Amino acid sequence: MSGHLAVIGLGPGDARYLTPEANAALKHAEVLYGYARYLERTPLREGQARHASDNREEGARAVAALREAALGARVGIVSGGDPGVFAMAAAVCEEIERGPERFRALDVTIVPGVTAMLAVAARIGAPLGHDFCALSLSDNLKRRDVIERRLDAAAGAGFVIALYNPVSQSRPWQLGAAFDRLRRHLPASTPVVFGRAVGRADETVTVTTIDCAGSAHADMATLVIVGSRETRLVERPGRAPLVYTPRSVVEVSA
Amino acid sequence: MSGHLAVIGLGPGDARYLTPEANAALKHAEVLYGYARYLERTPLREGQARHASDNREEGARAVAALREAALGARVGIVSGGDPGVFAMAAAVCEEIERGPERFRALDVTIVPGVTAMLAVAARIGAPLGHDFCALSLSDNLKRRDVIERRLDAAAGAGFVIALYNPVSQSRPWQLGAAFDRLRRHLPASTPVVFGRAVGRADETVTVTTIDCAGSAHADMATLVIVGSRETRLVERPGRAPLVYTPRSVVEVSA
Repeated sequence: MSGHLAVIGLGPGDARYLTPEANAALKHAEVLYGYARYLERTPLREGQARHASDNREEGARAVAALREAALGARVGIVSGGDPGVFAMAAAVCEEIERGPERFRALDVTIVPGVTAMLAVAARIGAPLGHDFCALSLSDNLKRRDVIERRLDAAAGAGFVIALYNPVSQSRPWQLGAAFDRLRRHLPASTPVVFGRAVGRADETVTVTTIDCAGSAHADMATLVIVGSRETRLVERPGRAPLVYTPRSVVEVSA
Repeated sequence: MSGHLAVIGLGPGDARYLTPEANAALKHAEVLYGYARYLERTPLREGQARHASDNREEGARAVAALREAALGARVGIVSGGDPGVFAMAAAVCEEIERGPERFRALDVTIVPGVTAMLAVAARIGAPLGHDFCALSLSDNLKRRDVIERRLDAAAGAGFVIALYNPVSQSRPWQLGAAFDRLRRHLPASTPVVFGRAVGRADETVTVTTIDCAGSAHADMATLVIVGSRETRLVERPGRAPLVYTPRSVVEVSA
């Protein structure tokens, strides 16, 4: 008997982002694993077991889910946003690679979802309308000089930058350091978007410029988008401005 | 009276990726605009007008939709994948900026969706599991030296690269030139994923290495993911291999 593991993307917060495929995967799971806050979002089903764990225990959660699936169960792991973007899908692949042979025999499905940067971008216009990159500022798993080199490369070459995990309690200073780094490459007026808890009842989206952006604008629930030299702001009377990056590049950025 | 314009992300192909928010926006529109192939995917509703146009006419389509919304109608523009990623949302923002004042008074909603790179990544593992960028190879709207500079910057700094619009009839050679460029930065064994028509009945996903990758692997419906130095391939007996990028960076890429 072979079990099944689904890694399920819930999208950002609200049920209106949950795809029919993700909804079906949640229904079919006999057991669900996940960060407690994500499990709270999924409707309870009779007879479905749930194992909540801390946000930082991704590897241990993946192993527990893989073991239960290898015993023949239909197991689901829930993930906020898209499971393939700084989330559970990579943790599951890591444990399959380093785990016992029976993990490789498992039927594994990854169910994509709307990742945070897409939801934040949709709220404000189209800041990701041209070439962009997604970069995690967490230095738990990556040396700080790698982060700095990637910020330099991305901003220098004209990519818009979506920053995931911009701050944490242990590194409140890090986002400010990233903005300092980016100011070397970008004009002072470059738009910066802070999307907090997007898709939830308490969502806020604010726009500022790179010369005014600081770490006080963000917390752990924030996704930051830093524009490129091409990114534009369109004022609208009586409405929030639009921020967008045109489809065509008119100049070669310096 | 003020009209409304919704730019609606359909996700990749199949209805199982259509979010409840997108579904509701499709229902509420009195008029739908879009590329003919995307309109075909959306269920017909009684009394709903439809205006199909060619894939290359994004600006004209945006203007037509904005004009109709400014007359007071509830208008929808459909977009494959996510409308904010190389798609209609930026075209709409461009026309709002350059258009008459009444375009700025409009209520505009952008409905995010699952973009192609997330769907392709989900099929094969977690190649976007760490820092990555999304880059369009279309040179209609961008000079070729900008594309080359961005390929160099992204691969050199260790980003995984998702290539949108990898080939077209007018530039069948361009993807091959991009691979040549990337081979300067990446080991020969770096995994490359080709996802064609993902989410549709005729979907195919193939994996090769950067030394074997060529433009013959792709057509206009293909999304290409080029790994970084950290991206790994896990063979599985009797199953397709997994391709993933670990969450931690162990070495500084050259």
